[in-house]
Amino acid sequence: MKANRMEAFSDGVLAIIITIMVLEFKVPECHDWYALSKLGPKILSYIFSFVYVGIYWNNHHHLLHMVRTMNGRLMWLNLLLLFWLSLVPFTTAWMGESRFAATPTALYGIILLLAAFSYRLLQRAIIKQHSGDSSFVVAMGKDLKGKLSPLLYLIAVLTAYVSPWISGFFFVLVAIIWFVPDKRIEHVLKGH
Amino acid sequence: MKANRMEAFSDGVLAIIITIMVLEFKVPECHDWYALSKLGPKILSYIFSFVYVGIYWNNHHHLLHMVRTMNGRLMWLNLLLLFWLSLVPFTTAWMGESRFAATPTALYGIILLLAAFSYRLLQRAIIKQHSGDSSFVVAMGKDLKGKLSPLLYLIAVLTAYVSPWISGFFFVLVAIIWFVPDKRIEHVLKGH
Amino acid sequence: MKANRMEAFSDGVLAIIITIMVLEFKVPECHDWYALSKLGPKILSYIFSFVYVGIYWNNHHHLLHMVRTMNGRLMWLNLLLLFWLSLVPFTTAWMGESRFAATPTALYGIILLLAAFSYRLLQRAIIKQHSGDSSFVVAMGKDLKGKLSPLLYLIAVLTAYVSPWISGFFFVLVAIIWFVPDKRIEHVLKGH
Amino acid sequence: MKANRMEAFSDGVLAIIITIMVLEFKVPECHDWYALSKLGPKILSYIFSFVYVGIYWNNHHHLLHMVRTMNGRLMWLNLLLLFWLSLVPFTTAWMGESRFAATPTALYGIILLLAAFSYRLLQRAIIKQHSGDSSFVVAMGKDLKGKLSPLLYLIAVLTAYVSPWISGFFFVLVAIIWFVPDKRIEHVLKGH
Repeated sequence: MKANRMEAFSDGVLAIIITIMVLEFKVPECHDWYALSKLGPKILSYIFSFVYVGIYWNNHHHLLHMVRTMNGRLMWLNLLLLFWLSLVPFTTAWMGESRFAATPTALYGIILLLAAFSYRLLQRAIIKQHSGDSSFVVAMGKDLKGKLSPLLYLIAVLTAYVSPWISGFFFVLVAIIWFVPDKRIEHVLKGH
Repeated sequence: MKANRMEAFSDGVLAIIITIMVLEFKVPECHDWYALSKLGPKILSYIFSFVYVGIYWNNHHHLLHMVRTMNGRLMWLNLLLLFWLSLVPFTTAWMGESRFAATPTALYGIILLLAAFSYRLLQRAIIKQHSGDSSFVVAMGKDLKGKLSPLLYLIAVLTAYVSPWISGFFFVLVAIIWFVPDKRIEHVLKGH
Repeated sequence: MKANRMEAFSDGVLAIIITIMVLEFKVPECHDWYALSKLGPKILSYIFSFVYVGIYWNNHHHLLHMVRTMNGRLMWLNLLLLFWLSLVPFTTAWMGESRFAATPTALYGIILLLAAFSYRLLQRAIIKQHSGDSSFVVAMGKDLKGKLSPLLYLIAVLTAYVSPWISGFFFVLVAIIWFVPDKRIEHVLKGH
Repeated sequence: MKANRMEAFSDGVLAIIITIMVLEFKVPECHDWYALSKLGPKILSYIFSFVYVGIYWNNHHHLLHMVRTMNGRLMWLNLLLLFWLSLVPFTTAWMGESRFAATPTALYGIILLLAAFSYRLLQRAIIKQHSGDSSFVVAMGKDLKGKLSPLLYLIAVLTAYVSPWISGFFFVLVAIIWFVPDKRIEHVLKGH
């Protein structure tokens, strides 16, 4: 019963995060396609963040279904995850506004890295509740995506100072990896 | 169970989209009716978008009741629809600010066109889940509204460069067509 | 089942309306109480709107419990109500910014008047669903508050051009009248 | 049934409050770490408020589970609490913008003090519904946290004029005290 409210609250926060990002698109002074094209980097930056927040919503959705009993620890770990994600609109705007300058792009990656760490902390706390169920622990423990993405974020942060294109490549790579919801979790769910 | 959360998340995003559009109404410097009248195009633009988002909410509502089993594909198609709709506040503001200039009006139509396509992709994916139920497929397959509106949006986009009045006429036409919720879907629902 | 989603969507819109109004409080340049005191009219204006939206949420809550079957008509009447309420943050900001100048105050009253009319249309459509249940119709039909408040709003609109204090008095009067949730509706509910 | 809607509405408002605060982070003009560092006080101010709103959400969550029957009084007390919390984004922005100047910091504490009082009023009204259940009343009556925090807020308000560091110390102290959800309430819940 309590997990539902945490889910509803998280959904609310994620829905707002994903939507207020568009408030950063200032209406162009001119009324032609050229004026719009200048918003290009901001729109690209928005697409990135929309996909990432979408991925988090999607995975969060699967993860919370694993919760057996809610407690203060899970609530605070969930709030920690939401805290980092709540900074995404700011970093998205800065990265777009600066046309993918090194520091804003690195910060964007750092915030995503911190969100990924928080997600893993939440995941680990939920896995602990299933410590007796070895099939579940094994399935979740293999979580390659979860182990790979912080590494890729870190590379994206560092390469931001080399070229925004290389950094962007790694951001896109993480997105592609996470795109499909974790089949293993669905698998275990069906097994139950 | 999962469809509920997608519905709740979509409702959240649509509620925010519909509400943050009013943030574009800057408070007039003067305090008389004339100052307010200058906001006319923005208010008209807002009314359009309020009605469109209302229509989407309404139809989306009916559509999601058809979902049999949730999966990653449906989630991503739904997020694609929400992505295009999340751009509506920006295009609404630009169209209003520019007093229905050609390019902003065309862009407004393009975003609605892309939202309509995404809606149809989502619809088709949901219809597939009912492939055995011929009465359902037939009822949904006849969906004239859904086939007509992308065409009307396309005309509105093209005629934006002729006159905003002609373009506006087609936008109003789509709204009128969609106003009443699809009786056929309700029909099928009752039949079950 | 469907009424729930309309309720959830309305709650979302009302929650956003009530919260985004504070975005109009621009941070003062100076950091003393005097700088804050200049925000006085804006804060007063916000308190008014917070109470009104709170009243609407409260009454809307009771009203939707009366819905027997959802249909397109109810959805659109509900959206019409939300449309007028969505303009409240703008009129609140204008009234506060103008320090209760005549026209902004009159517009504030007009929007509330239109919201009140929409509420009554929604109420009437829901009463119709109970046309066989005479006790319900009688209880709702006596709705003195609902009949009185549009009249008081009208007086507030007209007196805005005489003095903001007189106008404000009538706004406060409506708030006081509506403060307590309609006992009659609760009565009927308990009777069922 | 009704308590659910109040919970959902409160969650919506809290989710929006916690998220719109980031809109105050204006994108820096320069694109380096130094430009970001200037946002330091704003980010610190945001972290404070995120934690406080998180605490309120958490405790509110436990509190509403105690509600036996909803009534107008509870609704209005809940709205009073939400009113004070809705002012948090403004005071957060002012405190951050002013780099913890005396008056903005004092105002921040005053708003939290008023929110704490409203919370206690709501709590007391809910306790009254359990007047027959002595174990519950005793457990809640001992509520040391709830008695201590208004006092600490008051000290933080007064010391804001001495030094922001002393004031900040007391704000942090309240946060630490409230961090863990009230075990006693959970205890009583399990006993039922």
